[in-house]
Amino acid sequence: MIKTDILIIGAGPTGLFAVFEAGLLKLKCHLIDALPQAGGQCSEIYPKKPIYDIPGFPEVLAGDLVDNLMEQIKAFQPGFTLGERAETIDKQEDGSFIVTTNKGTKHHAPIVAIAGGLGSFEPRKPLLENLSKFEDNGVAYMIKDPEVYRNKKVVIAGGGDSALDWSIFLADVAAEVTLVHRRNEFRGALDSVEKVQQLKNAGKINLITPAEIVGLKGDDTLTAVEIKKTGEEENLVLEVDNFIALFGLSPKLGPIGDWGLEIEKNAIKVDNALDYQTNIPGIYAIGDVNTYPGKLKLILCGFHEATLMCQSAYQKIYPDKKYVMKYTTVGGVSGFDGTKKEAPKAVVKAIE
Amino acid sequence: MIKTDILIIGAGPTGLFAVFEAGLLKLKCHLIDALPQAGGQCSEIYPKKPIYDIPGFPEVLAGDLVDNLMEQIKAFQPGFTLGERAETIDKQEDGSFIVTTNKGTKHHAPIVAIAGGLGSFEPRKPLLENLSKFEDNGVAYMIKDPEVYRNKKVVIAGGGDSALDWSIFLADVAAEVTLVHRRNEFRGALDSVEKVQQLKNAGKINLITPAEIVGLKGDDTLTAVEIKKTGEEENLVLEVDNFIALFGLSPKLGPIGDWGLEIEKNAIKVDNALDYQTNIPGIYAIGDVNTYPGKLKLILCGFHEATLMCQSAYQKIYPDKKYVMKYTTVGGVSGFDGTKKEAPKAVVKAIE
Repeated sequence: MIKTDILIIGAGPTGLFAVFEAGLLKLKCHLIDALPQAGGQCSEIYPKKPIYDIPGFPEVLAGDLVDNLMEQIKAFQPGFTLGERAETIDKQEDGSFIVTTNKGTKHHAPIVAIAGGLGSFEPRKPLLENLSKFEDNGVAYMIKDPEVYRNKKVVIAGGGDSALDWSIFLADVAAEVTLVHRRNEFRGALDSVEKVQQLKNAGKINLITPAEIVGLKGDDTLTAVEIKKTGEEENLVLEVDNFIALFGLSPKLGPIGDWGLEIEKNAIKVDNALDYQTNIPGIYAIGDVNTYPGKLKLILCGFHEATLMCQSAYQKIYPDKKYVMKYTTVGGVSGFDGTKKEAPKAVVKAIE
Repeated sequence: MIKTDILIIGAGPTGLFAVFEAGLLKLKCHLIDALPQAGGQCSEIYPKKPIYDIPGFPEVLAGDLVDNLMEQIKAFQPGFTLGERAETIDKQEDGSFIVTTNKGTKHHAPIVAIAGGLGSFEPRKPLLENLSKFEDNGVAYMIKDPEVYRNKKVVIAGGGDSALDWSIFLADVAAEVTLVHRRNEFRGALDSVEKVQQLKNAGKINLITPAEIVGLKGDDTLTAVEIKKTGEEENLVLEVDNFIALFGLSPKLGPIGDWGLEIEKNAIKVDNALDYQTNIPGIYAIGDVNTYPGKLKLILCGFHEATLMCQSAYQKIYPDKKYVMKYTTVGGVSGFDGTKKEAPKAVVKAIE
């Protein structure tokens, strides 16, 4: 059982920054995210896209923003349960919560902050018989660890940035990369499209278009896929170790929707007049996952909401303590790892 | 008469970022600030101090944060009335406002956003007879343009960072710099104290301590100051062109306190459940100057408040238009100066 002060569901920018504000209050955080890495959409969907509306950054790549936030919170040593989806929540007699993931990992905390963005990103899956049988046995919808594919025969399906970028990346890792797409045209960064063209010309990527995977073969593990090329009578059977279907991710509020929280338009209603708490005391919702009058789904709003949430959480955890906020410029930042960052102190010194 | 869409009172980080969010909505902004430059406290009081709690910046100097914000808003071409204090506000029949500064500059806008921080920073003045007579005639409490002091004989009074730093700076500009402080000890960055010691040793700064300026002489313009050195019977008369008293700035809500706004603990009450509007429709208060349940005087909260204020202002200015928020990552940023920043577009391209 993982124990923490604030259990944060969702490791996007809002959830990450909450770790910092909690840390200033000496509260520990643990984050759960269905994606294999921290950063939410910023890391998974558009790491290379510039964002222009983060205050103080005329331009910042989404991936760099996440890196900066990870650096900012490092000293507060957050825990992470990644690649697992928060599934159930059980309120304990003392008012605390136990949250269990789809893989059975249990987390116990007095405060739960849902920073789930647009929801957990669920992959769009191809409609194939016996698909579920091969999940984690050769079939994947997301690449968690590229080393899994070293010296393997891999077929990737998809026509967007993920399919292009992973084909490029795995061309150097896998024994064989085949890219299958139902059209001839790919949609992505010009660079990526051109790079795939080069790798195809160099024989490092096999390209089969327009085509679709129509069958999976193997006993316990995947051993081959059946490919239907448009206009051709006979299907092609390709021996592979791995089939990676990259058809995009679609956000779903998911199991959180069944936790008894007040939901409006697929978002969780919170008290924005006070502390972004939901209808269940002790459960907060911050960032894009929440809604209130005038709500804007902007990262900078999530930062503010996370900050006010932490103050409220502190008062719930320590009802008898009076916290006086200290400015970081004055008081510095004391990490849980023993580090201390602070402004150079003024001296009082005679000039003679 | 200066005309704009949103008249922002206070050019600190919150006021500056409001220009960006307004710009995304194609609303123009003009800012008034009593200080001689933009940036508020960050520029005037602690430009060299690191801030650790701006999201995405593990550490940023206050002055650099202001520079970044100025860069971020540049394309939205804000107007500035600097070195003047917003004094009176007059509501017009059509619901718009005319704000007049202490120097008589008039500004007309349908929306006023007070981003006044802790108030306008008023200098602490020495208690000297005929002081006001010499204000702007040789006596100053803030340095707006250092070139004014080129080849002049200058006496600076004070024992903190401002007194130290300006003595160092003017040692290269003025004909003569005398630093007077009522103690031998100075309080400031070690670097600055040591640099003043060096300049004193090199004869580039005259140091008179412990001592106080006790009199001002001159007809229309200052020509000399009278200095009392502790323990000495006779006062010293020093011929000078300028006396700069750097005894610190103290924030005062000032004339805004008389605008009929609901005030609580020296801050302006706003509706945080909706749009940070005050009790007077069309006047908003954002950043450290406002108060509401759970308020934290943090820069990051001001950014959020500024953003929601702009959305509400847009609806007031264009009640019939329906604005659909576009993400900058998707829609880019179109400046009023004709510039356009946007993410590289995806291509749709066949691979053959």
